[in-house]
Amino acid sequence: MAGKVFIHATMSFDGYIGDPEGAIDFAAGHSGLSKETVGEIIGSIGAVLAGRRGYDRGMMRGDQKAYGGAWSGPQFVLTHRPDDAPPQDPSITFLSSGVRDAVATGLAAAGGKDLVVMGADVGRQCLREGLVDEILIHLVPVLLGEGIRLFESTGHVELEPVDVAWTGDLTTMRMRVVRP
Amino acid sequence: MAGKVFIHATMSFDGYIGDPEGAIDFAAGHSGLSKETVGEIIGSIGAVLAGRRGYDRGMMRGDQKAYGGAWSGPQFVLTHRPDDAPPQDPSITFLSSGVRDAVATGLAAAGGKDLVVMGADVGRQCLREGLVDEILIHLVPVLLGEGIRLFESTGHVELEPVDVAWTGDLTTMRMRVVRP
Repeated sequence: MAGKVFIHATMSFDGYIGDPEGAIDFAAGHSGLSKETVGEIIGSIGAVLAGRRGYDRGMMRGDQKAYGGAWSGPQFVLTHRPDDAPPQDPSITFLSSGVRDAVATGLAAAGGKDLVVMGADVGRQCLREGLVDEILIHLVPVLLGEGIRLFESTGHVELEPVDVAWTGDLTTMRMRVVRP
Repeated sequence: MAGKVFIHATMSFDGYIGDPEGAIDFAAGHSGLSKETVGEIIGSIGAVLAGRRGYDRGMMRGDQKAYGGAWSGPQFVLTHRPDDAPPQDPSITFLSSGVRDAVATGLAAAGGKDLVVMGADVGRQCLREGLVDEILIHLVPVLLGEGIRLFESTGHVELEPVDVAWTGDLTTMRMRVVRP
């Protein structure tokens, strides 16, 4: 049985996942997730699908790795430039045959676990193609006023709350995408 | 003692309070607030400060009145065009001497109760001027993909969750603005 496809992001109250340069400093100093919650999320993930922007910013390397290195497994980067600086890390694969193929590849690699989608652009592409099962957001209590928005031109997508939890100063919301 | 100034809005998961024309149809069919919660909110409000766009759209008249007519009291509209179609309703007053004056006028009229700020543009002006004490949002589980955003170019504003409640399919979040 295939796992779910879910978008996972830490987002400001005004909808940004990064400042105009993509830095995620706004999330620092805000906390509230229990080890159990983090462990549960990480344990559910079989593979990562990310965008090229995050990759180029180094977000899949060193101490910027997904989940601070607490998770490891196959990671895929959707890119139009597969020949430009291909990954040295054998766990990272560039994919350039479109988002639908990338999700299928990621799900297969996840081996029955979930595929987590990271990044605004790849997230939007997945939403527009109807490829997303759930959206998991940690909402940080700050307005940034500018930056990279998670949700932009997604089209109309009905959601259904699966879980909402207020812990520390974060609000974690898991929403299911309602298929038409 | 003066009441609080709070922004109150029903917002889509991607941050919109209306479609591109300002219509709020997206909120229809989503519910979950108890009568008690609604009564408590309405009972706290002494006056309304709204923007000209909402006024011109008829959102302070007839069945589009604030809180469906369940609330009544002094209402102020911030406008650059006070001579253009001034209100017939004696409870509505046009104000054009700036947002700071408008908030002071509204708070005075609220007589110790709260002043609720409605509308994206007037809300942003109040946030930028440091005039907002709290933000109260009912988050609707839908992505609209386009429309009028509540939070746009607000500048950096630190918040602190006061209350988060998941009822029905709405998530209601009350955030306090942290003064620097």
